[in-house]
Order: sequence, then structure tokens, then C-alpha cells
Amino acid sequence: MLQTANERPPDGSARGGAHVGILGAGQLARMDLEAAIALDLDITVLASSPGDAAVRAGARARIGDHRELAVLEAFAAEVDVVTFEFEGIDPAHLAALERAGHRLVPSARAKLFAQDKLHQRRELAAAGFPVPPFAHARHMIDLMEFAAAHGWPVVMKAPRGGYDGRGVVVATTESEAAAYLAELPGGALLEPALAIECELAVQVARTSNGTMATYPVVETVQRDAMLRELVCPAEISGQRVLQACELARGIVSHIGATGLAAVELFLTPEGLLVNELALRPHNSGHHTIEATVTSQFEQHLRAALDWPLGETRMRAPAAVTVNVVGPADGSDPRDRLRDALAVGGAHIHLYGKEPRPGRKLGHVTALGRDRASARRTAWRAARILEGTS
Amino acid sequence: MLQTANERPPDGSARGGAHVGILGAGQLARMDLEAAIALDLDITVLASSPGDAAVRAGARARIGDHRELAVLEAFAAEVDVVTFEFEGIDPAHLAALERAGHRLVPSARAKLFAQDKLHQRRELAAAGFPVPPFAHARHMIDLMEFAAAHGWPVVMKAPRGGYDGRGVVVATTESEAAAYLAELPGGALLEPALAIECELAVQVARTSNGTMATYPVVETVQRDAMLRELVCPAEISGQRVLQACELARGIVSHIGATGLAAVELFLTPEGLLVNELALRPHNSGHHTIEATVTSQFEQHLRAALDWPLGETRMRAPAAVTVNVVGPADGSDPRDRLRDALAVGGAHIHLYGKEPRPGRKLGHVTALGRDRASARRTAWRAARILEGTS
Repeated sequence: MLQTANERPPDGSARGGAHVGILGAGQLARMDLEAAIALDLDITVLASSPGDAAVRAGARARIGDHRELAVLEAFAAEVDVVTFEFEGIDPAHLAALERAGHRLVPSARAKLFAQDKLHQRRELAAAGFPVPPFAHARHMIDLMEFAAAHGWPVVMKAPRGGYDGRGVVVATTESEAAAYLAELPGGALLEPALAIECELAVQVARTSNGTMATYPVVETVQRDAMLRELVCPAEISGQRVLQACELARGIVSHIGATGLAAVELFLTPEGLLVNELALRPHNSGHHTIEATVTSQFEQHLRAALDWPLGETRMRAPAAVTVNVVGPADGSDPRDRLRDALAVGGAHIHLYGKEPRPGRKLGHVTALGRDRASARRTAWRAARILEGTS
Repeated sequence: MLQTANERPPDGSARGGAHVGILGAGQLARMDLEAAIALDLDITVLASSPGDAAVRAGARARIGDHRELAVLEAFAAEVDVVTFEFEGIDPAHLAALERAGHRLVPSARAKLFAQDKLHQRRELAAAGFPVPPFAHARHMIDLMEFAAAHGWPVVMKAPRGGYDGRGVVVATTESEAAAYLAELPGGALLEPALAIECELAVQVARTSNGTMATYPVVETVQRDAMLRELVCPAEISGQRVLQACELARGIVSHIGATGLAAVELFLTPEGLLVNELALRPHNSGHHTIEATVTSQFEQHLRAALDWPLGETRMRAPAAVTVNVVGPADGSDPRDRLRDALAVGGAHIHLYGKEPRPGRKLGHVTALGRDRASARRTAWRAARILEGTS
């Protein structure tokens, strides 16, 4: 049932429960692998195909369908800790793994906050965390009531399964809303269109004994419903920084998250509001590979093992990361790597993925004495890779 | 004849001659692999066993004996560029590969400067580079003549095959000298015991069109004939820095080296003298992973492909790297990794090698605002790993 790829004997370093299994084998697992090589940690990934980014990079892999509980059980039995590079594993399967005695980082209970947006909103609101106004619409009458209170447009989200803007519709009319609601058997999470000054993200790592390490606050810029650019540190007041960090740490602690978590926030005229949680390394933390003492990937592995967390301070005054997205013409950024490497100070990361228009294929990070210089460098290389320079 | 390990399809990124073959699969190839993953470059290593450090980390590998020309030929036929992580390949084999049309980085002619100490001394002296006084002793009469001119002790080096102090004997008496000379069928390279103020190293990358990138000068501290610690930047005058860089660049250019080269120098009361050349990434450049914009490993791959070289400036005022050496009691530093990770700011690299007393098993790098603080951090973690804290 489970096939293998890159089989080889364990490194002998899996002492004291150090063999980490990662569900998923995309670019995040690939960057986990890079951190694992340096520390000589044993990791195995669950991939859907030998072509997955982490497997191509040489990660020891099991190939199987993560939707099958039997696959997850067989995988979990081979490792000491199970962690994640994405959200979309059936919560019931995760609960079953825990009942069978497997250690998940984060727990199934915490992970649900990243898997089910409605659950997240309800639980965080009940605990007093600032979330946007929201409602659960099963029928159009719920939606019309919400629209009457908050106005149009109404932002409709599938409670489960969406990411990178998928599963989100901004309905401007009743008929648009009705059409989308009909697609969602479990109903929709409703939110008003918020006046967003900027979007922020805070990475927090937490071990099971409650130790936390918090990264500098990042500003994220979305385009085409995907993270396009991140700027660190975010250009917000010191007071806002403290609020954002306190909020992120409070949530991570409250839900009992372990491993790395990214808390995405909206800054609005009414203050900070929770957007989404990612309970794993996240695109909003890619700059940490170069910009902070400990990368989010190494930190995630440390936290997953309940090992000491690393320092999170920045190494430079500013860092900017730009995602490299598959160009509309279907061309391959790898064909332009040589030219992009001529951009001094650009740290290029390519994920080994086949190009498709709009697909995240890599990222570029630049450090700088200020945000503007880092941004110039990162974009220059990213534009070359995307063929738009 | 060639077996495989970690077989998988090429990443599809081997465009424009980007598939790099590395002869050797130890920790240097392992760190080349880390750089290759980030850039999605295709590399394949020639390993002597599936247990080699780079293979354990997931490098695509061919397993074979690098002493056999047929093995080297079969390996070279599969890649676009052949490069190295060590020196000890038969120079005649390298020449044969070039005659067969394979591209070597560096060329067989340049590589010989790192393989044959006597050749290096003769050629560099003839070209006017400052080398220590030396002679080639085939018979004791040559040695006694040298001792008469330069005094005892006499440093005797096997012209070929030595590294990390192996192949070097400091003879204090005629009988010691005679005993060692008898072991060397090709004779010995003789040098006086030099008054060495400090040892320096300069990494220089060079592409085939002559473009070079030079790293900040490093001071190396040897212990038990092995690099124990490196400090960057070296604590020498600005004039010495310029001299050292000019000397290193001059040599690299003169011998036509390509790829990364490490030029090891002695600082003596008479000035700078050439010690050894390493024509590959080298232990004296491990700090570059964190301390400079471009690591020596990424730089080596860029240079091997004749791609633009990366920036070499430091990211912090000072960096110190300490090698982690297998303790005398045979214990495994990996068993103490968790404790060592509690040292804030210590970047730990473990090579996945089985512990043996005196064997290089990893290294620790720390950056700092000054050398003293970086040294404290690096040593604290290294001592924990070695069990001597």
C-alpha cells in the first residue's frame, strides 16, 4: 500500500524520538529537508507521487494517498512524531491516529483551527480574541440577514478545504450568493468586506511544555489571492507590533498549538483582527531562511521534537521575499536561473516543480539596510525568473 | 560496475549543461547538495558506499571506486561537468577524462597543484609566488644538505596523498628522517620549521572566463594537524588583507583554477608564504554558509557551471567556525544535539558520519558583533557536542 522512494538506511541519528514524519512532500517539506540535513535529523515524508518537490530533493519518502486512514496509520507507525506541511488531512483521521497512540504536532484538536474556518472563528470569538464579524449561513435567509446587518458585498468562505483564496467568493448580489451557497453543502462562513489597512503575519513556534519563540511581525501583500510579497519587519508602530505578537502568542497558547504556527492578521481601522491560522511552516515565513538566526523550518523540527527553540532575531534591518509564480506563457523560471543569479544579494529558492501558470514555483529573498533596497533586489531577481524583467 | 543510490528522475532543471557530477560524497558534497536543493540544480555524486555523508542526505549517487578509470569514465558520461570534493583522484585518470572530452572543474592541470605538493612548490616558486624554502629529497644526502642549510628539525612531506597533516613528519634527527624517507618511494618534499605567526586562508571562486570572487580572509587554527577553528575576518592589518587576497587571486588565476579554491597561507616574520591549495570547497570556508551572502558551496556550483558568481561580503562583523571532532571515548555528538541546540546563535551542522575518535563529524558556526562573542558561542556548542563542556 505504501510505496517507497529514496529508500536508504536511517542515519542512526533517530535517537530519543528524533524520527519525524511529515505529511506532505511539497516545497515546505523540501525546505524542512534542508534544515534536517544540516542537523542530521531523520525525516520521512508522505508524498502523493515521486515527483513531489521534497522527494525530488532526496527526502526519504513513502508514497501513498493521505486521504486513506490506513495509509496514515502505516506511515505514523514508522516514525516517532507526525507533523504536517499542509492542512488538508481529514480531522477524523487525525483523531484516529491520536487514539492509536501516535504523537501529532500539532494535535488534531489544535490543527482543526487551521482546517475549519468556522470552528476557528467560533472558538476564538468565544475566547475573546478579535475576529471579524461572522456568521454561518446554511440557507439564504441567514445570508440576507447578515447582508442586512453588514451590507454588501458579503465575503463567503467554504469552512473547510480552501487555501490561497480558493473557496472564497466575494458576493455582490443575492443571486451570486445563492449560487455559491448552493455549492456548499455545509453552508458558508460569512464575513463583511473589511477595510483592511494591511495584512500581517506572525510566526510562533511552541513546544508541548509551552515554551514559545516569536518571530518579527511580517507584512504580507496578496495578489491574485496568493501571497506575493512579504516584508519584514512590518512597517507598523511599535505598539501594533506588541499587540500583534501578543495576539499571536495568545492564540497559539490558547489552542495548544505545537510546532510552527503562522497567525495571519488584518490591520483595520478597528484594530487587529484574526484572519487565518496555518499550523505548520508557512509561505509568510520563507524569509526566515536567511533573515533570522533560525529558519522557520529548523524551528518547526526543533518544536516538533520538543527540543530547545532557536533565536528568532533578524540578521539584517530588513528582508523582503517575493514568490516566483509560473508565468502565463507556461515558460519555466529555471530556464532563466542563470540570469537571475546575476542579481547580487538575491537568494533564490526553486522548488523543483513543473511550471504551470499561476503556480508557486519558488521564491526570492533579499536582505537590506532598509525595506526599499531589499524589495528592489528581490523583485529584480523574481521578475527575471518570471520573464517579466 | 556503477551501482546507484537514491535513484530518481532528474529534476528537469539540467538545462544548458547544469547537471553537475561530484567526485566524492563526504560532508563537502553533502553541503554542495544543500546548495543544489535551494537552486534546484541537478547533482550526482560518486560515492564509495551508500553510507557516505552526501548519500545519507539524499544525494543522487553512483557507487563505485574512484581509483578505477572505467568508473570515472562511466560517471563522467552521465553528467555535464565533473567536479570534486577531495583531491585524491589519480592525475593520470583526470587527464584521460579530459582527453575523452569531459569537462573538469578545475582542469586536471590546475588540480595537480592541490594533488602534488612538490609540483605546487616548484611551479609557484618559478612563477615568483612566495613559497617556503623547499627541496626534493630522494636520498639522505639531499636531506642532510637541506638540514645543513636550514637547520633541524626538517619538515618532510609526502608530495602526494596527504591531507589533514597525514603524510607530514617533523624530523628532529637524521635517523627519524631516514626512517620516513625510506617510506616514500618518490622522495620527500623538505621544508624548514617556519616561524609561523598565524595561518590564513582565502577562498576564491573563478569561472572559466576568468571572473573571480574573493572571500574575506580567514584565520585558521590547527590542532592535532586538523583545522580546529576558523575566525573571520582574520585579525591582521588591512595591508596584509590586501596582500593575502592579491596573492590568492594571483595564484588561482595563474594556475587557471576554476570552481572554488582555498589558498592556505602562512604569515611569517618574512611575510606571507603559500602553504597549500585546495581546489574545491574547503573546511576553512564552512562559515560562509551563514556568514557571507553566498556560501562557498553555492559559489562552487555557480563557478562550475560558469554562471554569475555571488556576493562574498559578510553578513555580520565576525564569524567563528569550530569543527566537531569525534571524542576519544567514541561517543556520538548526535546524542548531545538537543543540549547543544540550547546555545542561542549556534549554527550546528552534523554530517551523518559514524563517530570515531578524531574524525570530523560536524561543525558549529556563530556570528557575532566581534570575534570574541562569536568564538564563545561556537565553542560552547562544540564542547557540548564533543562531551567536554
